[in-house]
Amino acid sequence: MPANLPPALTDDLRGRFGDRFTVSPAVCAHHGKDESSLPAAPPDAVVFAQTTEEVAAVAALCHAHRIPLIPYGTGTSLEGHLHAVRGGICVDLSQMNRIVAIRPEDLDATVGAGVTRKGLNAALHGTGLFFPIDPGADASLGGMAATRASGTNAVRYGTMREAVLAATAVLADGRVIRTGTRAKKSSAGYDLTRLFVGSEGTLGIITELTVRLHPLPEAIASAVCAFPDIAAAVSTVIQTIQLGIPVARIEILDALSIQAINRYSKTALREAPTLFFELHGSPAGVAEQTAALRAIAAEHVGMDFEWADKPEDRSRLWQARHDAYYACLGLRPGARSITTDVCVPISRLAECIAATRADLEQTGLVAPLLGHVGDGNFHMLLLVDPDDDDQLATARGFAQRLAERAIAMDGTCTGEHGIGLGKRKYMALEHGAEALAVMRAIKMALDPDDIMNPGKILPD
Amino acid sequence: MPANLPPALTDDLRGRFGDRFTVSPAVCAHHGKDESSLPAAPPDAVVFAQTTEEVAAVAALCHAHRIPLIPYGTGTSLEGHLHAVRGGICVDLSQMNRIVAIRPEDLDATVGAGVTRKGLNAALHGTGLFFPIDPGADASLGGMAATRASGTNAVRYGTMREAVLAATAVLADGRVIRTGTRAKKSSAGYDLTRLFVGSEGTLGIITELTVRLHPLPEAIASAVCAFPDIAAAVSTVIQTIQLGIPVARIEILDALSIQAINRYSKTALREAPTLFFELHGSPAGVAEQTAALRAIAAEHVGMDFEWADKPEDRSRLWQARHDAYYACLGLRPGARSITTDVCVPISRLAECIAATRADLEQTGLVAPLLGHVGDGNFHMLLLVDPDDDDQLATARGFAQRLAERAIAMDGTCTGEHGIGLGKRKYMALEHGAEALAVMRAIKMALDPDDIMNPGKILPD
Repeated sequence: MPANLPPALTDDLRGRFGDRFTVSPAVCAHHGKDESSLPAAPPDAVVFAQTTEEVAAVAALCHAHRIPLIPYGTGTSLEGHLHAVRGGICVDLSQMNRIVAIRPEDLDATVGAGVTRKGLNAALHGTGLFFPIDPGADASLGGMAATRASGTNAVRYGTMREAVLAATAVLADGRVIRTGTRAKKSSAGYDLTRLFVGSEGTLGIITELTVRLHPLPEAIASAVCAFPDIAAAVSTVIQTIQLGIPVARIEILDALSIQAINRYSKTALREAPTLFFELHGSPAGVAEQTAALRAIAAEHVGMDFEWADKPEDRSRLWQARHDAYYACLGLRPGARSITTDVCVPISRLAECIAATRADLEQTGLVAPLLGHVGDGNFHMLLLVDPDDDDQLATARGFAQRLAERAIAMDGTCTGEHGIGLGKRKYMALEHGAEALAVMRAIKMALDPDDIMNPGKILPD
Repeated sequence: MPANLPPALTDDLRGRFGDRFTVSPAVCAHHGKDESSLPAAPPDAVVFAQTTEEVAAVAALCHAHRIPLIPYGTGTSLEGHLHAVRGGICVDLSQMNRIVAIRPEDLDATVGAGVTRKGLNAALHGTGLFFPIDPGADASLGGMAATRASGTNAVRYGTMREAVLAATAVLADGRVIRTGTRAKKSSAGYDLTRLFVGSEGTLGIITELTVRLHPLPEAIASAVCAFPDIAAAVSTVIQTIQLGIPVARIEILDALSIQAINRYSKTALREAPTLFFELHGSPAGVAEQTAALRAIAAEHVGMDFEWADKPEDRSRLWQARHDAYYACLGLRPGARSITTDVCVPISRLAECIAATRADLEQTGLVAPLLGHVGDGNFHMLLLVDPDDDDQLATARGFAQRLAERAIAMDGTCTGEHGIGLGKRKYMALEHGAEALAVMRAIKMALDPDDIMNPGKILPD
């Protein structure tokens, strides 16, 4: 029996959930750590919920006892979002993995929060539709909504902000709301859907969501092109977007990332700043886009422009991109990565990257850079020896300066990873004291006892 | 001196604003009525503000005296959004019409809340960019943000929900916040931008906003096609969207609307349910889209498919569409229009329209139907004799059944006009009591004295 939970609560949960309630240290430990480098903070117990009603029942009980409640999807968050820093009950939603409905005429689907993006796409097989948001990890859609995730396709298809039409959410006291309808647009009152998207479980727990789908493109092509420097690559992207070329993906990888990929994926790419493109459309449209891209890249001294429209060639290229994380870890065997992301207006991107690389050189850290350059969003993988406290401190200092640099350029301290525990310290700088006070007022209005994923987003 | 305002407040405002503060009955009357059929409700005074700081000063004064504060843009709202139902001070923002910055590399612009959409597009001349959101009226961007407006281009370019990157807003007590940054995406905390977009001045007054721009398409074509019935037209739209044809506009007009247009605009269109399309892209892409559309329309017995890529032919067509409101009024000289809009999942659209037309026949009302069919959003213009109370009551009853029908189909009681005063009665039905309670809690947290545009959105 965990010391922190009232026996009346554990008895009630055990009676209601049987084996799906556990205080097993191993299970709690598994649920107390995400993919960040932050110290683990296990919950006191874990409940595996299967329905919205069950989550509501857990919330009502936790509310009665003023015990924290933390939602858990696949554990792939990057800023300590699920760490039970004040103990409490973790609600694992992975068994809420039902595809409730797929509606091809409306291009939408309703799913349990535990359905993963790959799970949804598998269920869409044969419909001619797909769900485009791809944060890398096969995260749950509930978790992706809660962190406002995005990824490589966001430049064309948007982020979870645009993808979620409506959600079912359990509030702090166990009440259940639906945040919208299936209408594509609405002017009917406050946008609760967008309020819950990105709220990281601090206002309520998303248990079901309706998401937009998109038609599978008739034709897909990929292209890759190396550049003499980052500025030339970014200028290529700016011009591409200004010309209205509807690229589905534009990714940037610096020379170090390419070196890592060459080593890991046995590719032979030039070790220079490189753009990966993906183009969606009709066959003629994709050919036209490719020609336009080639011309723009040539203007910016692009080298080795190659394109692929065969699925196997495309897959090889994007597999290499998706494996970049592991490839980069391979640059320093034994290292682990402190992964951070920022997002700036694209006009400032080349400057932000240049200043960041200059800073990096001062630190002596090894840190490949890659990102969703069409959105001005990039990641750095700070490869550190987990046992070297000095190096960890250096890396954290570097990440802090990066966040502050992005904010100073009218950007954000996180484009897609979220705030969690790790980035709370930038909230006041990014939003200002008054906007942060508004967020606190909203949190207080919806969760006055501070039991919904406490300690996240808002600084203490 | 208006009886409702404390002399200390009016003295202070007069001292601060001079001629830009007025209690003139004519000016107050002008600011107490929008384009709805709701009874006028003039404010006690009007302030013409020129800066965010001035709005903040008015808010601080109103807060000190607990006097309502109502923002005013161009007065083109349709549900009584600006009616001063509890008196108070109207802040006219039309002089906040400065284009603060246009940033072609970032595809964004920052403008005062009083800049209109046409004003912004005029300022964009020569940049190769445009602002696509077009609600018909030349509304102010602040007002469009506050009502989450959209219009004909939303199917391709989204609504004000997607268009606003960040806003500056004055809170109930005069504090000023900025709701976001210029980063294209962010996962940094609660989405205050989306909370203020659509809040109709009830949480704060938007004084400045940063909006996304889009590249002007290289080629534009329009097409028009008549159908034997509404269902065939809607099926054409569904198939068009499922195939991923990126139409910029798809508008539906029923036979009665076409009849009105023929009469008003001297066109010779077949008086049958009709789709108007607009296509944006490269010349080859637009030609390809046109061919695909023609084939889909033919499958659904489309008739008289015509397309135009010359600017003058396109303009004539869209001018006719934009004049549809006046054309429809011409169907019943002396009548005025009670204009309402709903939005449903597109799979339910044909059914919703059929049931609505059957209902209409029972009432004997004359009401052309037109709408943004790609989004499932349609409008009815209920043409009524303003002096005939029975007819007004019949029209209001019809509008109520229409809203309830849309909600029953998992749609919304308003796709783009907003709630204002007129649609508060549907809020509980659409959102449920618990979600409505969440909205109330947010309102209470941000405006505990209920002085920001009181009486709007939330039912009493």
